[in-house]
Amino acid sequence: MATLNSTKDFSPVEDAENIKKACLGWGTDEKAIISILGHRNSFQRKLIRLAYEEIYQEDLITQLKSELSGDLERAICLWTLEPADRDAVLANEALRKPILDYRVIIEISCVKSPEDLLATKRAYRFRYKHSLEEDVASRSHTSRDIRKLLVAVVSAYRYDGAEIDDKVAHLEAEILHGDISEKAFNNEELIRILTTRSKSQLKATFNRYKDIHGTSITKDLLGDPADEYFAALRMVIRCIRDPKKYFAKILRCAINTKGTDEDALSRVIVTRAEKDLKEIKELYMKRNNIALDAAVGRDTSGDYKAFLLALLGDDEINN
Amino acid sequence: MATLNSTKDFSPVEDAENIKKACLGWGTDEKAIISILGHRNSFQRKLIRLAYEEIYQEDLITQLKSELSGDLERAICLWTLEPADRDAVLANEALRKPILDYRVIIEISCVKSPEDLLATKRAYRFRYKHSLEEDVASRSHTSRDIRKLLVAVVSAYRYDGAEIDDKVAHLEAEILHGDISEKAFNNEELIRILTTRSKSQLKATFNRYKDIHGTSITKDLLGDPADEYFAALRMVIRCIRDPKKYFAKILRCAINTKGTDEDALSRVIVTRAEKDLKEIKELYMKRNNIALDAAVGRDTSGDYKAFLLALLGDDEINN
Repeated sequence: MATLNSTKDFSPVEDAENIKKACLGWGTDEKAIISILGHRNSFQRKLIRLAYEEIYQEDLITQLKSELSGDLERAICLWTLEPADRDAVLANEALRKPILDYRVIIEISCVKSPEDLLATKRAYRFRYKHSLEEDVASRSHTSRDIRKLLVAVVSAYRYDGAEIDDKVAHLEAEILHGDISEKAFNNEELIRILTTRSKSQLKATFNRYKDIHGTSITKDLLGDPADEYFAALRMVIRCIRDPKKYFAKILRCAINTKGTDEDALSRVIVTRAEKDLKEIKELYMKRNNIALDAAVGRDTSGDYKAFLLALLGDDEINN
Repeated sequence: MATLNSTKDFSPVEDAENIKKACLGWGTDEKAIISILGHRNSFQRKLIRLAYEEIYQEDLITQLKSELSGDLERAICLWTLEPADRDAVLANEALRKPILDYRVIIEISCVKSPEDLLATKRAYRFRYKHSLEEDVASRSHTSRDIRKLLVAVVSAYRYDGAEIDDKVAHLEAEILHGDISEKAFNNEELIRILTTRSKSQLKATFNRYKDIHGTSITKDLLGDPADEYFAALRMVIRCIRDPKKYFAKILRCAINTKGTDEDALSRVIVTRAEKDLKEIKELYMKRNNIALDAAVGRDTSGDYKAFLLALLGDDEINN
């Protein structure tokens, strides 16, 4: 469930006008912007952006970029984009980093439904005049194994029905176990299974793996913690097996890292606030003995903090 | 341009009734069925199928399957399916053969536009409860290299704009040439380029290749004629570079092979009759000094021949 408290009565024109007002004059009224955009759902934000464009002949996001800065700017701009377009921007951002942030690519590829992943790939092509696969595949300075894995997960257009073939689950659990035992982690069979089978089928295969061998596949994949390929493989499995648990973990790492990883923090809160952030918060609480809101409040400050708390459904302004 | 002569005034209900009439009683009136379906475009056939279902509570294709047989049955049933669904059926048929017919998979993946390929993959998932990638990837008894190439072309969701990067074309022409000179045909770079770049970009790269090295890339790839991986690579390049020429060649081979390859003959005529069969016919004439209609007429017989000639726009019945 979502954590966002969105308003029921709203006028896109009034919102657009109020945002413009907050941007005029000396300095920007960040609080006003947060109180509006932090309480509008995806469809409402779309209408505000259309109204803003219509009234001021200017793109709302361009305006926000020129008025805001730092973590707040990034978070609000991501939030204002439509989901598929936002993920395209996140993927491109990850690809342009000196060290490719493979987590983002895996997250987008393995958490989203096949149709949503497709919408993101379509948005990416529209924005960057390249396909996402193409940019992942031609990315140099990335290890060959990781690149191979990323191209395969990004290209996947999995079946998304609930049907499961038990025989296949058993057979492929054994193939995975064989590859892992022989340390053939970049074996094509392993990659084929993880990147082409439907998520329901893979969950059945992972369960079968545990039934037969007594340990989970991710435990068996715990290799050298510094080996990024291992980490990427485990991440693919986690994103497919239990995305909420995965996101709770990403939030924990983002908050616990020295200096806070604001990029990851904003990414998860912005992308999940209208989906399953409520359950992610519960998992976070259970695992860390502190509420996510409290942890975020402790680690961030100012308007950025106010905005994240608004998306977490934990602020006093209930617009 | 299309070769199909479709009628302008038509009633889906009347057509459905006339097809039913042709199926009733002793024997089937194949000529009546051909005179109707052989002169209806894709949208008209869809309406006939809907009308048939509505009136007789029976699927038209199931009915046709029970009334017709052999090459005529296969051709008319393929023709009656919607294009994306038809390609899904063709792909599945190719995958179920004892020796995988990789030509069909390459054709579908490399000739269709990215959006049409996607529609086919969606139809495949709907029909077979598996993704097409998954079934290609898990296909055993196929050489590892061919499978790797097929999975990559099937998974591609290329950018389809006209923008070209000349620097990339030059650089990648040299990478391709390097791999080919070193006989590293299954090199990942070669596969990456062929399967992720946009078709416009690839055409520029192939041209650059010829400019620099004086021979075309397909000529440089002429290896052992019995090596299927070479043949598959050349086919990928040909389908991207010039699909019409590719189809003219497939028709030539289908007709000139001992006993005629009816599967390929029907496939090309059925899938191209509403697209570019006119230009394919011209290319065929130029290369073989015989009109395609005459060649088809010589090699086939009976109702099957009548149906193919109808799709080729060369029959006396102009319904």
